Amino acid sequence: MTADFRDDMTGAIHTISQQVNSRDLTGVARLIAGRTTSELVDVCERLTEKQRAVVFRLLAKQQALEVFEALAPALQSDLVSALRDSDVASLFASLDPDDRVWLLDELPAAVAPRLLRGLPDRERELTAVVLGYPKASIGRRMSPQYVTTHPDLSASQTLARVSAGLDHAETVYTIPVLDDGRRVAGVVSLRDLMAASGETVIAELMSQPHFSLATTDAEDAARACADLGLLALPIVDSESRLVGILTIDDAVRILEHEETEDSARQGGVEPLRRPYLSTPIRSLVRSRVLWLLVLAVGATLTVQVLEVFEETLNAVTVLALFVPLLIGTGGNTGNQAATTVTRALALGDVRSRDILRVLGREVRVGFSLGLLLGALGFAVATPFYSMPIGLTIGLTLVAVCTVAATIGGVMPLAAHAIRVDPAVFSNPFISTFVDTTGLIIYFVIAMAILQI
Amino acid sequence: MTADFRDDMTGAIHTISQQVNSRDLTGVARLIAGRTTSELVDVCERLTEKQRAVVFRLLAKQQALEVFEALAPALQSDLVSALRDSDVASLFASLDPDDRVWLLDELPAAVAPRLLRGLPDRERELTAVVLGYPKASIGRRMSPQYVTTHPDLSASQTLARVSAGLDHAETVYTIPVLDDGRRVAGVVSLRDLMAASGETVIAELMSQPHFSLATTDAEDAARACADLGLLALPIVDSESRLVGILTIDDAVRILEHEETEDSARQGGVEPLRRPYLSTPIRSLVRSRVLWLLVLAVGATLTVQVLEVFEETLNAVTVLALFVPLLIGTGGNTGNQAATTVTRALALGDVRSRDILRVLGREVRVGFSLGLLLGALGFAVATPFYSMPIGLTIGLTLVAVCTVAATIGGVMPLAAHAIRVDPAVFSNPFISTFVDTTGLIIYFVIAMAILQI
Repeated sequence: MTADFRDDMTGAIHTISQQVNSRDLTGVARLIAGRTTSELVDVCERLTEKQRAVVFRLLAKQQALEVFEALAPALQSDLVSALRDSDVASLFASLDPDDRVWLLDELPAAVAPRLLRGLPDRERELTAVVLGYPKASIGRRMSPQYVTTHPDLSASQTLARVSAGLDHAETVYTIPVLDDGRRVAGVVSLRDLMAASGETVIAELMSQPHFSLATTDAEDAARACADLGLLALPIVDSESRLVGILTIDDAVRILEHEETEDSARQGGVEPLRRPYLSTPIRSLVRSRVLWLLVLAVGATLTVQVLEVFEETLNAVTVLALFVPLLIGTGGNTGNQAATTVTRALALGDVRSRDILRVLGREVRVGFSLGLLLGALGFAVATPFYSMPIGLTIGLTLVAVCTVAATIGGVMPLAAHAIRVDPAVFSNPFISTFVDTTGLIIYFVIAMAILQI
Repeated sequence: MTADFRDDMTGAIHTISQQVNSRDLTGVARLIAGRTTSELVDVCERLTEKQRAVVFRLLAKQQALEVFEALAPALQSDLVSALRDSDVASLFASLDPDDRVWLLDELPAAVAPRLLRGLPDRERELTAVVLGYPKASIGRRMSPQYVTTHPDLSASQTLARVSAGLDHAETVYTIPVLDDGRRVAGVVSLRDLMAASGETVIAELMSQPHFSLATTDAEDAARACADLGLLALPIVDSESRLVGILTIDDAVRILEHEETEDSARQGGVEPLRRPYLSTPIRSLVRSRVLWLLVLAVGATLTVQVLEVFEETLNAVTVLALFVPLLIGTGGNTGNQAATTVTRALALGDVRSRDILRVLGREVRVGFSLGLLLGALGFAVATPFYSMPIGLTIGLTLVAVCTVAATIGGVMPLAAHAIRVDPAVFSNPFISTFVDTTGLIIYFVIAMAILQI
């Protein structure tokens, strides 16, 4: 190390501490880029604890690992507690999400779980921001308390690890097997461990692992855990290194919450925060009024459409009689399609890229339903009113059902593709949309057939 | 035993075997009523295996237990296999459900799990009929393979039991603790067992048990298991004796199935049997057409209502313009209430007996929403049309929202009270119902204000 460099370092450290204080994280990132590990260790050792945590967090993943390993164990644990510090967390939390993705590389798997370990749930959520896991990702919900083993260890050695982990691990019933690089090579169940003779090596006992990335949507990871019937699902970073574990009871809680939200949104209601009977009337009103207003404003379109056709309506008042029936049937057909496709999406049976297949299917289903209802409508309306009226009703039903099923089926997928909760394009939303379309179809067909 | 009785017995046995062959189970039940245990054992020993199974199953619980215990072990296991026989099962399956409840007492807990043990899932369902558990009850879904322990046993003795049960038990992670009468006195987790020293008695380790009755609805038991975050829930008979166990993975499967069903029904669709993309178009049509027809027939009511008010409509055509907006808003308000209450019911937050509280809340919520929307409707419609039209729109919105929220909130509870799936009174159903009511309200108000 030359005197020159030392001067440079002193200057750099001064600048860095100023930049951290003025929350200029981009500046810090720029200043530490391209330095060697030993330089960075040197910088780290000469900053205050909080400053050190900030600098460390701005390192690229590989470099962060090297710096961390180069620190003395006492300094390592100081660093971990500084990273958990609420000032540091709030500094990163205040970053624009896009900046955060850009500035914060994944933390090495050697550090990430240590950061979360022992924190109560509330604080874990905050610290997950420091880890850089996106909102609603499983990285924010996983537990960092697990027992692991190694393929070369024996069953009895692993049982000893289980015994040691009994009082703090989230679960001891599913044990991830890690290779030398902390990558998940398999899982072994406590049951299989107990059934095996003590000398059996884990490599023979372990089964192929299922796992989810920490950045996966929490709902998807929870559904994977539940669908596979697993008691716990290992959570890994982008290099398949273990960073946490999701247990089935947490997965069930996540799914239940999501299902309550989906069901609420489909009904055009904001999800309630507490049980129905203990929610104040005011909050119930608030959970519904916004959507109701949006939908009512949307429905003014129907008034405008009817105004356009007011002359037709004046000439043949009988047309007005069928308006609720026709748009109601359209709404129902649209809701049926939307309900089926939304659920299929939630269960992972359908994906955004299936949109053309869904379109093709819903056109056919809607057309079939339309033919059935249309024939019936024609047969019933003709004797009561007249042949032209019957024909108008029948053809409108065919067209409306086809359009409604198609819109209802495609809308949730389109929402999903642009990363909007498909349930937001709720049944009431689709009804309102289909109402307007249905009225236009109705009057266009009526004018053509009745020659007005 | 007198000669008389022996003659009587020979006759009785002859009659019984005739009655079993002619499937007259009520006759058999009448004939064996009031006999002593030793007489019954005598009867049992002289019948064919299948006949013996039928007679045994028709005994009252306590007597069944005494007879079972009086039989030689070889005969006991013959009896168990005969009870599993598909001929015997189909005999009981063919009984009218009411007769079945009346004729089949609960089987003793000493027999019930033996009957189910080792059966594949499909056959278990059939045999559950013999056990008398009602359709959709958890008794038909639970597993009879469990490891149990006793309060006086030590941790190491229990661990030995766990080791012995490793290859057949459904779970070894939750171990029910049974007292001398097979009643569930507590549960102990494998984790706590491993953490304890070997001599600790189970009575010190076990925690208060949660359990469900075998006759409980499968969904309710599954929800209890999931909500309590349990890995397994013991299932008991009416005397708290263990008859089976429900593991969390099965509970999750039950809940997911129920949620798919609920979501489908709320959209007015029959649940699909397979993933959406692999369901043939014909089945998709079939899953929707029935409800669509029912709703369309229901919607003809709106045509009739409009016919009644045709003169009013002719006099003031402008009234027709608002029909879709008004009934649409009513439908949305009704759906919102129905969605919220249906979900609260599914989560157990609301019960049937809360119907009056729900009614009171929904009247207030609906009225508040109606006031907001009505004021807005009045303010917007008056300048564009006229004061009387604005007033009509405003007041109709107040009335329609109040009525719709009330109907939407109360309907699912009413359905639940009469044991109909609340989701069947689906959102489309409520929309159609509210459409008709809304139209009547609209025209009555219009006639009063416009003096026509």
